[in-house]
Amino acid sequence: MFLRIDHIGIACHDLEAKIEQFTTLFELEVVTREVNEEQGVKEAMLRVAGDSYIQLLEPLSADSPVGKFLAKRGEGVHHVAFGVPDVTDAMEVIGSRGVRLLDEQPRHGSMGSSIAFLHPKDVGGMLTELVQAAKP
Amino acid sequence: MFLRIDHIGIACHDLEAKIEQFTTLFELEVVTREVNEEQGVKEAMLRVAGDSYIQLLEPLSADSPVGKFLAKRGEGVHHVAFGVPDVTDAMEVIGSRGVRLLDEQPRHGSMGSSIAFLHPKDVGGMLTELVQAAKP
Repeated sequence: MFLRIDHIGIACHDLEAKIEQFTTLFELEVVTREVNEEQGVKEAMLRVAGDSYIQLLEPLSADSPVGKFLAKRGEGVHHVAFGVPDVTDAMEVIGSRGVRLLDEQPRHGSMGSSIAFLHPKDVGGMLTELVQAAKP
Repeated sequence: MFLRIDHIGIACHDLEAKIEQFTTLFELEVVTREVNEEQGVKEAMLRVAGDSYIQLLEPLSADSPVGKFLAKRGEGVHHVAFGVPDVTDAMEVIGSRGVRLLDEQPRHGSMGSSIAFLHPKDVGGMLTELVQAAKP
């Protein structure tokens, strides 16, 4: 079902400062910077290796999901994303096994991907994202 | 520096129940079960793909690091581990860049690996593990 650990999403207060920190500490390359108004974040994808990334997320407002996470938990791991061949198929299969889906249909993710989130309480307390990569 | 996202470590109250849940929901294979007395956990590695895993962690006691994490945060992502070619080299380089190391020298990790942890406050709030895989 899973093709890879696609990315670790990390919530931060200052995207540019965190990009500077992670690229320097771990010699990671910034692949994209994007603003996702729907999710209320500006973000960057830093390649770890192959198709696996660290995603840095800064909220666009305090009342966005990532803004609320930061206020409650502080900076740290916000979600974990797994690559799947087809996000709609994966949502159907996983949903049929009793996991609540936070999205009724796929949304737009980083780098043209299609994504959906699973309820963390149904997946060991981990906010879990399914990612179908954009076609090359 | 990083070869892969090696694993996501997830703290849980009941290892066997969580193994059952994750293998059923996501069709993951259990590669190993181990007890690590030094770290105060019993654990299982579930293969996501290639050399990337979900690591499920149940504390051996309430006063172990994972036991304290569970009491404070509840179940969820405890740490993220990145594969490196040589853990001693990586500790030296990352330490020289101002990150506090939680280990003075490498410790024994899952599946015969050598590991070291970085202070989460110096790495965006993410408890970060470096993993050098065992030689085949």
